Amino acid sequence: MAADPSSQVLVTGAGGFVGQALVRALAQHCRVTATDRSGLEFADLVGVTAVPGDLDDPALLAALTAAPFDAIVHLATVPGGAAEADPAPAARVNVAASMALIDAAAAHGNRPRVLFASSIAVFGDPLPAYVDDATAARPMLRYGAHKAMIEEWIATMTRRGAIRGLSLRLPGIVARPLGPSGMKSAFLSNLFHALKAGEPISLPVSTGASCWLLSLRGLIAQLCQALDLPADPADARLNLPAQRVILRDLVAEVARQTGHDPALMDYEPDPAIEAAFGRQPPLATPRADALGLRHDGSLGALVAQALADL
Amino acid sequence: MAADPSSQVLVTGAGGFVGQALVRALAQHCRVTATDRSGLEFADLVGVTAVPGDLDDPALLAALTAAPFDAIVHLATVPGGAAEADPAPAARVNVAASMALIDAAAAHGNRPRVLFASSIAVFGDPLPAYVDDATAARPMLRYGAHKAMIEEWIATMTRRGAIRGLSLRLPGIVARPLGPSGMKSAFLSNLFHALKAGEPISLPVSTGASCWLLSLRGLIAQLCQALDLPADPADARLNLPAQRVILRDLVAEVARQTGHDPALMDYEPDPAIEAAFGRQPPLATPRADALGLRHDGSLGALVAQALADL
Repeated sequence: MAADPSSQVLVTGAGGFVGQALVRALAQHCRVTATDRSGLEFADLVGVTAVPGDLDDPALLAALTAAPFDAIVHLATVPGGAAEADPAPAARVNVAASMALIDAAAAHGNRPRVLFASSIAVFGDPLPAYVDDATAARPMLRYGAHKAMIEEWIATMTRRGAIRGLSLRLPGIVARPLGPSGMKSAFLSNLFHALKAGEPISLPVSTGASCWLLSLRGLIAQLCQALDLPADPADARLNLPAQRVILRDLVAEVARQTGHDPALMDYEPDPAIEAAFGRQPPLATPRADALGLRHDGSLGALVAQALADL
Repeated sequence: MAADPSSQVLVTGAGGFVGQALVRALAQHCRVTATDRSGLEFADLVGVTAVPGDLDDPALLAALTAAPFDAIVHLATVPGGAAEADPAPAARVNVAASMALIDAAAAHGNRPRVLFASSIAVFGDPLPAYVDDATAARPMLRYGAHKAMIEEWIATMTRRGAIRGLSLRLPGIVARPLGPSGMKSAFLSNLFHALKAGEPISLPVSTGASCWLLSLRGLIAQLCQALDLPADPADARLNLPAQRVILRDLVAEVARQTGHDPALMDYEPDPAIEAAFGRQPPLATPRADALGLRHDGSLGALVAQALADL
């Protein structure tokens, strides 16, 4: 797929943090249609068609899916914090529009590959003492429930042979850009920006908080590999490999690589944030490992990759 | 709940086969608001408020949920055959409107009891050799996926403490009225009508087909009991007790009780219908059994109950 220059790939949420990087990676190998409400800055790329608009707009969806795609990477989402603040539009984008997109893409009969950016938010909190491929979804956030619901839709449509779907549970991806993201886990990225700038920052978790993390480059590599994996109608869900990082170790490594003082970090744990993002237990991903997907390899490599993209 | 005359209960899909019987049963004990697009014939009942309209209409939903309910029984649905024939409106009612109803009901902060009429369609086909409370959802029909998705929403909202939810997986309910129901399993009811009238009928399954069945009266009793069960945030899904009936035995018993010839039945198995509705394996429902829910007890009792309501 990623290596076939005639392949047509649709990327939703293409103006976002992950979407922009994915479009740039895919454009080296195939033809990309990129859609988002904003952020479609791909004029420098050959073979990328930008289609601005809201996925919740039936006219946009109809225009987007008028011709078949070989693959779709569905990243567009209203994230966790934003979905809690304004539930109705979040449900329209995260659930209704996602179902409509999948149905429209399937209607051409070409069984497109569909990668869905799900989230470890499907596991909710508190997490069990150990998470692996058999751990059941048990969301607590609206966002997590939305993701679990679309996982079910994709699994059903894959069993029916309408698509070749795969829902990928993304861990925390670092480091996202500064600014309002609507994500409750934004502090994990903001600490990179603060340390690089030598500025103090208050973190809403404890120094012992444990988080599953993957760099943006690590994620893009996994997404490109996943496009070419064979579809498995028996299990259309996959936990992505990630490193389990203790916050004090992460801060120390970012400080070391940026040459700043880890004492710039102040810790004011918020029990809800700590419960949702700071108590992630050991994670095993044997299915993804067997498929050849890899995390960044070491804390040093994760931090270096993340800092390189700031 | 069902025994408290000041309780306010909302029934959606109240004009349907199950809804009409449930409203009549509840009206003996509490105050009922009944909503549906049609079929709200409750002028003879005291304490029933009929609110006609489409649950997919935001104005109707806002009017319905302006005041809190102690309990909601959400029966309204676009059934399996109709959902396959016209997917988009089915998704709006079965998923989007169902989410909006639950959110609106929860917004009063009174943690209403919410019973959701899910379906054994969440199990899809082929079924494993044995089904019990641990069997995973694996839908094949759009309708089954819709039900599994709303089960997830109700489970999440129950874990959050917003509602006291319970999704009940309904087996085949007999005998539904004749006429277009949009249900692929309509043949299970139509055979009662044909034998009672002494008319021939062709069934789309084999004589050895096995089906999980419950009479309407048996279901109404289970629903009324379920209204008063304590909510279990750890598991908001429940398989209802049902009898596993072999079609030739069912036909023989209906023929015996109606005094007609079982040879009126002709069998022309449709592989898809047989797979979806005619290969239901032994079913164990220990959780529901422990909660005191019961099926009709015997094939004779099931058939007698069903014939009494024709």
